[in-house]
Amino acid sequence: MTVHGGRLALQTEGHGQVVDLTEGVASVLRASGVAQGVATVFAVGATVAVTTIEYEPGALRDLQELLDRLIDPRGDYHHNRLNRDSNAHAHLRAALIGPSESIPVAEGRLLLGTWQQVVLLDFDDRPRRRTVVVQICA
Amino acid sequence: MTVHGGRLALQTEGHGQVVDLTEGVASVLRASGVAQGVATVFAVGATVAVTTIEYEPGALRDLQELLDRLIDPRGDYHHNRLNRDSNAHAHLRAALIGPSESIPVAEGRLLLGTWQQVVLLDFDDRPRRRTVVVQICA
Amino acid sequence: MTVHGGRLALQTEGHGQVVDLTEGVASVLRASGVAQGVATVFAVGATVAVTTIEYEPGALRDLQELLDRLIDPRGDYHHNRLNRDSNAHAHLRAALIGPSESIPVAEGRLLLGTWQQVVLLDFDDRPRRRTVVVQICA
Repeated sequence: MTVHGGRLALQTEGHGQVVDLTEGVASVLRASGVAQGVATVFAVGATVAVTTIEYEPGALRDLQELLDRLIDPRGDYHHNRLNRDSNAHAHLRAALIGPSESIPVAEGRLLLGTWQQVVLLDFDDRPRRRTVVVQICA
Repeated sequence: MTVHGGRLALQTEGHGQVVDLTEGVASVLRASGVAQGVATVFAVGATVAVTTIEYEPGALRDLQELLDRLIDPRGDYHHNRLNRDSNAHAHLRAALIGPSESIPVAEGRLLLGTWQQVVLLDFDDRPRRRTVVVQICA
Repeated sequence: MTVHGGRLALQTEGHGQVVDLTEGVASVLRASGVAQGVATVFAVGATVAVTTIEYEPGALRDLQELLDRLIDPRGDYHHNRLNRDSNAHAHLRAALIGPSESIPVAEGRLLLGTWQQVVLLDFDDRPRRRTVVVQICA
């Protein structure tokens, strides 16, 4: 086997911004020439996560409101107090959702559903430069 | 390396139904002849997820009640209003839990715990035909 | 390809204890000699999970308090009543967070962020011996 790797460099706004990674992951896949395998997508950083969602304004706003309700940015957190920081909610959201997803590949295509996009969620409370690593195992 | 792939075709009831995938994944593994590697299990679709749980009636009901409490199917959601849809809660649950898990393989067996089953969670609000993709990397 | 495997044996305290697995995973990676690939980290058992977080006392306490709030250990659960058990909350937390993460490897190193550690979360309500399986695909 060979593992074919690629990195996506992104500038985000933070504050829960959702970035559609699907075309970026597909471009790494095309460059690899792999027909069948698994694409692992990993977000580097402790305040960022990867999942899939329908990239549609309503669903994205709903996700933001859900997370604001479950993990309030204005909550009272030990991380913020101990480290004079302000992004504890971002750490918690990222840990809950997790940094990686693995997407199957067949006939050179990602086997996502029609309305299913791979996304980066940047929960930090300021703009960030982010790296997403894509490894194609085949 | 070769990646050995298989697909499981399922008919679900939706509404949070939990389907035990363990035997299906194991059958793809047996067909592959792989002794050591990783089995990636991926649910195709934006309202469905994969995780592990003890497949036991009490735990399954508890999971349903937990998700009903955290992400109410009758909530007021942008996705539903903007798209004249009714399954926003399903999108949110699927994004939170995620579509993939990767399970190690040794001596031709999935290294799951005794009470740990691989499951599909179908959160949509109607019966669905679903595809689960299993890729065995070895 | 060859898949290089390793297992980490751990004694935990349960009750949401967070164990930093980063050095253990890195030691399996070094033993494998792999330069580029993917490290899959999997927690065996239905009351334990894997994610990444900044391994810092404040964030760890915040995670514990978040989960105590969302999934109360003293709640009324079917799993506990039907099985005369007491760890239903542990099953629910483990299913929500999930048992696996896949971390890319380049130049023989895990591509984690500076403040991003791979962790085991043991949600059971008693001390446990745990096995974490690490498979390096390359």
